[in-house]
Parts: sequence; structure tokens; C-alpha cells
Amino acid sequence: MALIVQKYGGTSVGSIERIEAVADKVKSWRDKGHDVVVVVSAMSGETNRLVALAKAIQDTPVPRELDVLLSTGEQVSIALLSMALNKRRCPARSYTGHQVHIRTDNMHNKARILDIDNKRIRHDLDQGRVVVVAGFQGMDEEGNITTLGRGGSDTTAVALAAALKAEECQIYTDVDGVYTTDPRVVPEARRLERITFEEMLEMASLGSKVLQIRSVEFAGKYNVPLRVLSSFEEGEGTLISYEEEGMEEALISGIAFNRDEAKLTIVGVPDQPGVASKILSPIGKANIEVDMIIQNVGVDGTTDFTFTVHRNDYDKALSILEQIKQELGAREVSGDNKIVKISLVGVGMRSHAGIAGTMFEALANEGINIRMISTSEIKISVVVDEKYLELGVRALHSAFGLENKS
Amino acid sequence: MALIVQKYGGTSVGSIERIEAVADKVKSWRDKGHDVVVVVSAMSGETNRLVALAKAIQDTPVPRELDVLLSTGEQVSIALLSMALNKRRCPARSYTGHQVHIRTDNMHNKARILDIDNKRIRHDLDQGRVVVVAGFQGMDEEGNITTLGRGGSDTTAVALAAALKAEECQIYTDVDGVYTTDPRVVPEARRLERITFEEMLEMASLGSKVLQIRSVEFAGKYNVPLRVLSSFEEGEGTLISYEEEGMEEALISGIAFNRDEAKLTIVGVPDQPGVASKILSPIGKANIEVDMIIQNVGVDGTTDFTFTVHRNDYDKALSILEQIKQELGAREVSGDNKIVKISLVGVGMRSHAGIAGTMFEALANEGINIRMISTSEIKISVVVDEKYLELGVRALHSAFGLENKS
Repeated sequence: MALIVQKYGGTSVGSIERIEAVADKVKSWRDKGHDVVVVVSAMSGETNRLVALAKAIQDTPVPRELDVLLSTGEQVSIALLSMALNKRRCPARSYTGHQVHIRTDNMHNKARILDIDNKRIRHDLDQGRVVVVAGFQGMDEEGNITTLGRGGSDTTAVALAAALKAEECQIYTDVDGVYTTDPRVVPEARRLERITFEEMLEMASLGSKVLQIRSVEFAGKYNVPLRVLSSFEEGEGTLISYEEEGMEEALISGIAFNRDEAKLTIVGVPDQPGVASKILSPIGKANIEVDMIIQNVGVDGTTDFTFTVHRNDYDKALSILEQIKQELGAREVSGDNKIVKISLVGVGMRSHAGIAGTMFEALANEGINIRMISTSEIKISVVVDEKYLELGVRALHSAFGLENKS
Repeated sequence: MALIVQKYGGTSVGSIERIEAVADKVKSWRDKGHDVVVVVSAMSGETNRLVALAKAIQDTPVPRELDVLLSTGEQVSIALLSMALNKRRCPARSYTGHQVHIRTDNMHNKARILDIDNKRIRHDLDQGRVVVVAGFQGMDEEGNITTLGRGGSDTTAVALAAALKAEECQIYTDVDGVYTTDPRVVPEARRLERITFEEMLEMASLGSKVLQIRSVEFAGKYNVPLRVLSSFEEGEGTLISYEEEGMEEALISGIAFNRDEAKLTIVGVPDQPGVASKILSPIGKANIEVDMIIQNVGVDGTTDFTFTVHRNDYDKALSILEQIKQELGAREVSGDNKIVKISLVGVGMRSHAGIAGTMFEALANEGINIRMISTSEIKISVVVDEKYLELGVRALHSAFGLENKS
């Protein structure tokens, strides 16, 4: 008997049949004696339909009014799911973000949750009802409708779980958990039973699209255990929580990778204070996000400076660097947009030496040349030629024994 | 410079093009210096689409959840219209019924408005904004979303006009006003410039579908001048208000008719107290609405009792009467479902004798036999054979000179 918050995304409620299936699942938790709060997204396709209506009027619709419009998508879902639950003699009530006072700042289209008044939800739970809450939306201090931006329903679920001190926040999606790596690349990839928030953040930001980064951060901040499960299959999914006593200490949790990288190098810049900012400021001003940054120890009073960007930004970044080259009197600008990044992620790294050595050796054994290296406390990333992506990921997966339950 | 409340129905906002046209119209009023509050319905077809989704889950959806679902229709309209206004540099803000505290009772799907907190609307008007409010919806005391039932947007508009003490409540529709009778029956039918609330109520309840009866009652109760206008054409429409000094005193305002009538007679029932209720109670319990009721003076201790019902209820009513015949020991039950009702409406009747005589004579001149007669202070209704409908209406229209401005 616990309080569980569940979140079902747009695909999970994409049709009447799917909504009925979600109702079955919710009811099965209720029947086990749990209190259940459900957060739902708009039916898949609905948000796009609404955006198209708005764009038919204005290319850039007024943000406040766009939120009024988009928030109807989730409102339709909560009503239909509540009907499906009531039909199953599972008493349920739906609420918009406005009605349960999900208070946000006033940044329309990308608002952040400030707090939630859970009185009303508590009351309904006490009456034995399932509470169905519209994801992705809230209201600002003046009562204007706000939305949290795409994927915001995950954040709604985590915020509710935190406010209600729920035992667990379950995110139902179309995959059955978090894997050691992408199973399309490594067929032996294995579902993780547990992973820490920090590892999940590294996995997510490195391209594993299972959860929204913001919701993982949020869950970590408020220490809400998150569980990723499949809407369509039975299973335990993957639990994301803090490290616990007795938690199996995996050396490495998984291997993330990112195909859309490009790297740029400016060679022979004067090795003086302020050079890095002279290079990166114009890049930032052009709205280009920089990922890895590496600067080697200088020789002869000059140094080389390398960074990676999204592949779409490669040409723009290159032409900016050419200008900077003139200004700084650098020797050369070079780049490569046929590279990928592969990262080992694991909190076990903290206490185990030799991980990097094993990694580099595994890659070398396959004849894969490492172009860049960057490390953090729980992650080692390398940049290699694009053609080596699959080979590299498989080599590492095997070298660290990820296919076996560690 | 006045405060105007305008209401646009589903057809008027049925597409992006239509919404843009409404925005033009609203802006033209704003440009004349008026404060404008706009009430809109769901885009035509949208409510039916939502009802179909609900019915795919439950034949009789939970009323509370149906309201959560249906209220999204109007919410889409207010957002889109506000965008279209802002695009025209006409500052506008949209509000749901919840946001402007349109407080109703808790009768989901057919709630009644109790009061409106107009602070927020006043504030926006003071800032020079057009305020766009979702029709048809409100919230009960506990903050649950309610809807007013079909056509409820008219009521929202009237209630807002009353709360804001607006100079006029304009109902934009697909006809350009209230006519002396249906122009499809009498091509000479003339648009009325003015009509009283009482006359409008008689016209509406008798089958002129221009306005919802409830909104006319409401407007009369709070003395809100109502104007019916076309969304698509220019024109003054028809003003509905109380009789005023100097208001042209038309003898007859119009001729209403109703095609869907059927009459039933139970012959030779004992002329005793309580008989009428013994006949009508079972009819009422079967959810059959009775319109005209006529009982003649009894002869020989028995009397005949006649009433009319909607043609769809004819068979059901007939079989109930057969049973009652046994119980009361009546002589006979007869009926006719090929009849229509024609009504003369006009406050002028009050002070003018001879109207009935003129009416009956006009019908007699055409060889039309009157089957039933019923009168009220401002109305005379007759039941005639269905085949005489057009002939009768035209004869009366001409006999009372309605084709000329009276």
C-alpha cells in the first residue's frame, strides 16, 4: 500500500483503445491497494494539430494564447481516461493544472513549476479515487495558463510525486526500461534494473532519449525514485534512484553515444589568458551549443583549441572560426563533421582505477583511433571517426561485460 | 463609447478564415472606441467530435468528465481568436469560464450561472484590451468545470453583459435578425427592427430557432438589451428589449409555427376533479412534454380532454392514453399526428380587441378548418391540418399587413 504517481505519454493514450488499456493498468495498481495519481499527455498528434491551427493565424503565435490552446490537448486526455476508469467502477476525477494549482513562473511555452497545492488531490485519494492530472501545464501567479514545453508531462509527474511524497514516480513509455546501450547497435544490450540519477543524466544528455533531462534533474533534486516502464508490456522496468547501501555496485552502467557531432580545431593560437573566451563567445552568440572542449598544454607560446558542436551547426561554426583566426593571428582552422562520441557511464568509476585503460585498450584492439578524450567523475567520452561507431560500442559493451548481469 | 458584449456561434468561428473575419469585425468595434468583450462557441463540428470520443468509451459518459472534455472546444476558439486579434495589433486576452470565475451550480452538462466575478475583465478593459471569454462553461463552488448545455454560449454572453452592465449584448448568428415569420414560407417576411422580450420568448418557444430561450429569459430578467445580427453581412439586426415609451406599437410582431405537433383526445371521461392530473401525470412520467392543453365544458357528466405533444412522442402517448381509458372508463381515444400549430404573437394584442376575429376570418376565407385554439395575453395559437401550414401563415401575414413596416 503506497502512493504511486504514474505518467503516460502521448503514444500510450494515442487512441481510445490505448486509453482503455491504460485504464486497465491503472486499475490493476488500484486493485492492489495502492493510491494512484495519473499524469497524462495529449493524445499523440493532437499537439501538432493544435500548433498547425495556431500557425495558420500567426507564424509566431502569442505565447500566452498558444498555452491556452495547447493545454486543451491534455485536458481531452484526462477526461477520456477518467471516463474509462469510471466505466471500470474505479472512481476517478480529472484535473487541469489550473485546478490543482500547479503554480509556475510566467515564462509561457517553457514555464517552470514553482509549487503545487496538493490539498485537493489528497482529499480525493482519501475518498478512494484515482486522480488524473493534465501534464505539461500549470498557471502563473495571475492565473494565466502556462505550459512547460515539450516533454513537460514527465516534469509534472515528478513534481506531483515530490509534492505528495510518493513512493515512486512511474514513467510509462514505449520502451521497457533503460538499456546498457542501444539494442539496435548491440543486440546483447541488457535492461538495467537500477541506475543512479547521475548516471541517468549522463545517459540522457548523451542521447538516450528515454526521459526528459529536466525531469531527471527534478527527481534527483527532490529524491523521487523514478521508474521507466513499458505501457504495452509487463515488466519491472528500470528504477532510477540515488545509490543505496547494498545496491549492486556496477562498474559501468551503460554506453551512450551521439552520432550528430562535429569537431573544430583552431591551431596555433597565442597561449594567453582570455583566448578561450575570445573563441567561444562569438560561437555562443550565434546560438551554437558547444559540447566537449579541449585545450592542450601550449608549446612555443601557442596552443591548439578543439571543441565539438552539433553537426547542423558545423558550417556556421567553421566560418566564425575563420574570422577569429584572423583576429587572433592563429595558424590554421580545421574540422571534421564525420565524427561520433562514445561515452562510458558509471558511478563505479569513482572508486575503480583502470577503467580508462581498459576502454582505450578495447578500442585499440579493434584498430579504432581516438581523436579526443574528455572525462568527468562518472563518465569517459571519446570522439572517434563515424565509421567506427558500431564497432566501438560493441567492443566496449563486451569489454566491460555489460551483456551479463553484473 | 460603450461597453459591448458580442457572442459568435460555432458557424461564425468554424474555420481559420471565419475566425479572421470575426477578428476584423471585433476590431472595427474597438476602433470606434467601444470596449468589447467577446464570447465564442466551439468551432462547428468540434463538440460533436468530442462527444464521439466520449461515446467510444461510454454510452453515457460521466457528466463531470464530459464537461472537462467538452469545455476544451471553446478554449480552442478563444485562443485562436485572441491570436487573430493580436495579429491585428488589437491587444486581446482569452479566458476560460474557470479563469473569470463564471460560477454555476453543480448540475454538470446543464449548469446554471450563479454569478460572475468581473474584476479581471474590468482590469483588462481598462488596459485597452479586448477580452475573449469561452462560452458555455463555468465552474461550480468546488472549482469543478461545468457546462451550460448546448446553446449555453448565448447565456454566457447575456450573463457577462448583465454583470458588466453592458450597453448591449450582440448575438452574431447566420441570420440577420428576427423576421415576422419564416421567409422560406412567406417571401414577403420582413426583418423586425425591434421586438420585446416577451414576444421573443413566444417566437422562440414556438419554433423560431434564432436564440436560446434561456438566454432571452435571462436577458429579460436582468434587462440586458439583446441584438441579433448576422456574422456575415452588415446590418442593424433586431433589437430585443422591453417596451419603451415611443416604441412603435405593433399590433402583431410576427407569426410563429411549429410543424412537429401531434394531438391526442380522450373522449367521454368523467367530469370530476383530478381527472386532468390522472391523464397528464403518466404522460409526464414517460418524459413526454405536453404543449397545448384544452378541456371543454362537460356535457352529461363527461368531458373531452385534448392535448398536443411532439410528433416523435405520438405513438408512446397514444398507448399510454389507451391504458388510462380503461382506468377512467372513458369512451374513446383518438389522435392526429398530421397537424401544425400557427401562432400570432404581439404585445399590441393586450390593448386591441378583435385580433382573434381577424385571425379566424382570414383562415376561414382560405377554407382552413381550425382544430384547436389556445390564447395567452400576447399570443393566439391555432392547430390546423398540416397541409394548410403555408397557406395559413401566408394568409395571416397578409391579413395583418406584416409585409409593410407597421
